[in-house]
Amino acid sequence: MPQPDDLRHMAHALRLARRGLGNVWPNPAVGCVILRDGRVAGRGWTQPGGRPHAERMALDQAGPMARGATAYVTLEPCAHHGRTPPCAEGLAAAGIARVVSAMTDPDPRVAGRGHGILRDSGIDVTEGVRQAEAQELQAGFLSRILAGRPFVTLKLATSFDGRIATASGESQWITGPQARLHVHLLRSQHDAIMVGGNTARADRPSLNVRGIATLRQPLRVVMTSRPIADLPPEGPMHGPMMQIDAPPQDALTRLAQHGITRLFCEGGGGLAASLLRAGLVDQIIGYTAGVVLGGDGRAAVGTLDLARLADAPRFRLAETRRLGDDLFHRWTAERRDA
Amino acid sequence: MPQPDDLRHMAHALRLARRGLGNVWPNPAVGCVILRDGRVAGRGWTQPGGRPHAERMALDQAGPMARGATAYVTLEPCAHHGRTPPCAEGLAAAGIARVVSAMTDPDPRVAGRGHGILRDSGIDVTEGVRQAEAQELQAGFLSRILAGRPFVTLKLATSFDGRIATASGESQWITGPQARLHVHLLRSQHDAIMVGGNTARADRPSLNVRGIATLRQPLRVVMTSRPIADLPPEGPMHGPMMQIDAPPQDALTRLAQHGITRLFCEGGGGLAASLLRAGLVDQIIGYTAGVVLGGDGRAAVGTLDLARLADAPRFRLAETRRLGDDLFHRWTAERRDA
Repeated sequence: MPQPDDLRHMAHALRLARRGLGNVWPNPAVGCVILRDGRVAGRGWTQPGGRPHAERMALDQAGPMARGATAYVTLEPCAHHGRTPPCAEGLAAAGIARVVSAMTDPDPRVAGRGHGILRDSGIDVTEGVRQAEAQELQAGFLSRILAGRPFVTLKLATSFDGRIATASGESQWITGPQARLHVHLLRSQHDAIMVGGNTARADRPSLNVRGIATLRQPLRVVMTSRPIADLPPEGPMHGPMMQIDAPPQDALTRLAQHGITRLFCEGGGGLAASLLRAGLVDQIIGYTAGVVLGGDGRAAVGTLDLARLADAPRFRLAETRRLGDDLFHRWTAERRDA
Repeated sequence: MPQPDDLRHMAHALRLARRGLGNVWPNPAVGCVILRDGRVAGRGWTQPGGRPHAERMALDQAGPMARGATAYVTLEPCAHHGRTPPCAEGLAAAGIARVVSAMTDPDPRVAGRGHGILRDSGIDVTEGVRQAEAQELQAGFLSRILAGRPFVTLKLATSFDGRIATASGESQWITGPQARLHVHLLRSQHDAIMVGGNTARADRPSLNVRGIATLRQPLRVVMTSRPIADLPPEGPMHGPMMQIDAPPQDALTRLAQHGITRLFCEGGGGLAASLLRAGLVDQIIGYTAGVVLGGDGRAAVGTLDLARLADAPRFRLAETRRLGDDLFHRWTAERRDA
């Protein structure tokens, strides 16, 4: 039975879950709040690398207070024995009386069996609380499980007229410091960063998280057949490097097999165009600066070869706001089949 | 002496003034509220074509109630005898006790003499209330008087990546119906609409106000040396046509001499680029659609030939919001000399 404060406590659990984005792959970023007599007895979120799970962390924190308590989880607790016993069993063993979950885990090893274990143990289970928000948070995990590829965010930081550099290639800086810091925040929330080969060679981008505390540096993916020199080696400040020479769809399949759930594509124009042409962009993040570079500037997106305007990839405005001197806007893909 | 409610009543007068934008040139769009014992006794705004003035309209409405009342005016009342007696004398003759004005009229025929006439008649005068807002509203009039050219707004309705058409020229429609209706609202608030010759020939644009009640159709200006055929003749639905074959600065000077205070430039890319190169764009209005057309699409702004990124024209974000499915954003020019 839903309770009046379920929405509020689930929002809390979702905020905790968000902390795991970018550093728990191939696992989902889950949040858990254990509430006993109206007080928070334990809080947990998926730890870096994916273990311990959110439920385990919250149960350990709650200790004996877990008995008779309510647990809010942003994803159905796991039901499969892996490196550790399943969380559904852990919640039951700790004496949790009620579990409120936001969504069913589509992982075939779970898929309702986590909720089933709970109910079989006599636990009162309420499902689907803040489900849409949980699904949005889990977009990467869901995409990897259901579509076999990571959730792809394309970042375009451009002039007012959609340029990423002057004709001579000058691009530092079009957007301001706040927008650039925001990019580092987004990098920290993604498992991997992808760029095209030309961009890697021309800009020698560091593709790491700077200026923001991060638990892991993202995987660096360069789409090219030719060798890439001059990129910094893997280390505390730089994630592993992966070079892929394959069509976009195959590259994404390979990344999903590697465990990547959230991919942040930072261009250039050729890679952006090939992902868009293949219908593989789930979200576009735009940073628009109040500067005009003209038609001779370098285009943010390469040739799309559209026969008709109706064939152009379409996106829905999700949010817009000022970010320093620039305009931030986020768009999500319109599903053709929807 | 400023009074507690001055800001509120001046905001009212400014809202009235706004009604005149686009249909009072070469006059300024002024608003006037006459307040007697805390009640509105008269409201006026500059009438189509520029006469009667706002003060005259409000005084006629107030009649004998004007005696001892306070008049809020968004611009210093005029002091020169034209087709009618000056408003400063009219206010004094009607027995107005106090005048609150937002700004001094920079017109050399006024320039403080309006306020002077009022004070000489024993009227209590408070100046500069909501001055910044009044100056923004009067940007067109001020530009014509002080810079000898109209205030220039450049409209760019583009795809996410700054394109105004596909490679094959298809452009209907990139933005949605709300954005297109908003363009008609802006057209109705401008004295003239300017397009380049190629755009006039290729799109045969109607350059009129549709779907919104308007008192006047704006002047249509085509920048070209070659004859333009196929544009609809002047009539109730279409403003006069003016063809100009001159560099942008000269064209704007000529339009100011003609009386134009607010110019709305709707492209194409070549004209936008030439205005930007000459530093003649005061404001950019962007409508960005969630569609990507690719680097082979038609660029919204032509070649700028920038030697360095630092030379690029810069604009400051003034506002942004969702408009239907599109993103609306307004930017104002950064003054280099500021």
